[in-house]
Amino acid sequence: MNFSSKLLENAVNEVSQLPGIGKRTALRLVLHLLKQPTKQTHQLSVALTNLVDDIKLCEKCHNISDVNICEICANPSRNAEIICVVEDVRDVMAIENTAQFKGLYHVLGGKISPIEGVGPHNLSIDSLVEKVKKGVVKEIIFALSSTIEGDTTNFYIFKQLGEFNVKTSTIARGIAVGDELEYADEITLGRSIVNRIPFDQSF
Amino acid sequence: MNFSSKLLENAVNEVSQLPGIGKRTALRLVLHLLKQPTKQTHQLSVALTNLVDDIKLCEKCHNISDVNICEICANPSRNAEIICVVEDVRDVMAIENTAQFKGLYHVLGGKISPIEGVGPHNLSIDSLVEKVKKGVVKEIIFALSSTIEGDTTNFYIFKQLGEFNVKTSTIARGIAVGDELEYADEITLGRSIVNRIPFDQSF
Repeated sequence: MNFSSKLLENAVNEVSQLPGIGKRTALRLVLHLLKQPTKQTHQLSVALTNLVDDIKLCEKCHNISDVNICEICANPSRNAEIICVVEDVRDVMAIENTAQFKGLYHVLGGKISPIEGVGPHNLSIDSLVEKVKKGVVKEIIFALSSTIEGDTTNFYIFKQLGEFNVKTSTIARGIAVGDELEYADEITLGRSIVNRIPFDQSF
Repeated sequence: MNFSSKLLENAVNEVSQLPGIGKRTALRLVLHLLKQPTKQTHQLSVALTNLVDDIKLCEKCHNISDVNICEICANPSRNAEIICVVEDVRDVMAIENTAQFKGLYHVLGGKISPIEGVGPHNLSIDSLVEKVKKGVVKEIIFALSSTIEGDTTNFYIFKQLGEFNVKTSTIARGIAVGDELEYADEITLGRSIVNRIPFDQSF
């Protein structure tokens, strides 16, 4: 690209570092900002800078938080005996939106993935084991994505927890509510038959 | 969305103001930034802030520029007798990339579009007429997009220039190089037949 301005080129280069945003999209976004009041760009810059400078990870669950202990961990009405193990903050948000879970979370920060160079020691697994060791936790729910990496991570943690007296479970896999059977993949459909539940518990 | 952090929520809200970026994409982008060194976010913020604070429009052609007179207008080897009228900086970049045009540009800043509330007085048309009035310009090339708005804008400027002795032309419309005839739309194909050119000039 032939830029008429170094300032423009610099801004486009920085924006195009973001995942999924190429040079053309970056140029479109930057030109949009130029058409808006400069206040908008200042607010954007300040919000991003404040975020990366001041964000914390909750000392208990490792979720993203503004304070040392996050809202969920600090809430005395949550059940500290059940811990839901998730990959990142998006999963916490997704589960919170269901309003079906009243326990605490443990955010791993990723999944074991040798291809991406992520091993067990890059994730916050040790602190989960420490938590269980203290004896308060009665159940661990694995809620990682249903991929090879997710299953590997589940299994690794399951093995680590073997010596402790803690129940482990995993969220149910099956046909999504509202989905047509004929379009479901066979593995999901197969699992949903094997793991069928009594009809009177299905409401 | 249920955010565990005000800082995160604020950053996501600001990023989702950008066109074509919803809350989910904004969250993905912001979480990506959190995984990168904070230096990257600082550079991004500084680049955007510097851009909106310091960018200028060239006094002659209204193109985006770091200085008062842009590189192209300041270049004595460009032909000041031919002016190519375009919508915005992206069109200048596209035409410059072809290396086929050695004249100067005039950036309108948009197209006449009553639906979007853009009238002739929102565009830099008066300064184009002033330029032509001075008598140096011999040819005006219209290079706006081939839409109703683009054609309206061309025609409006054409009428404004009627009293001056200046040649006007528009870039050729036709089948793109490398395109199959059968997939071309009939209007484009029709125009390319009406505006056919002598074969020996077509190389």
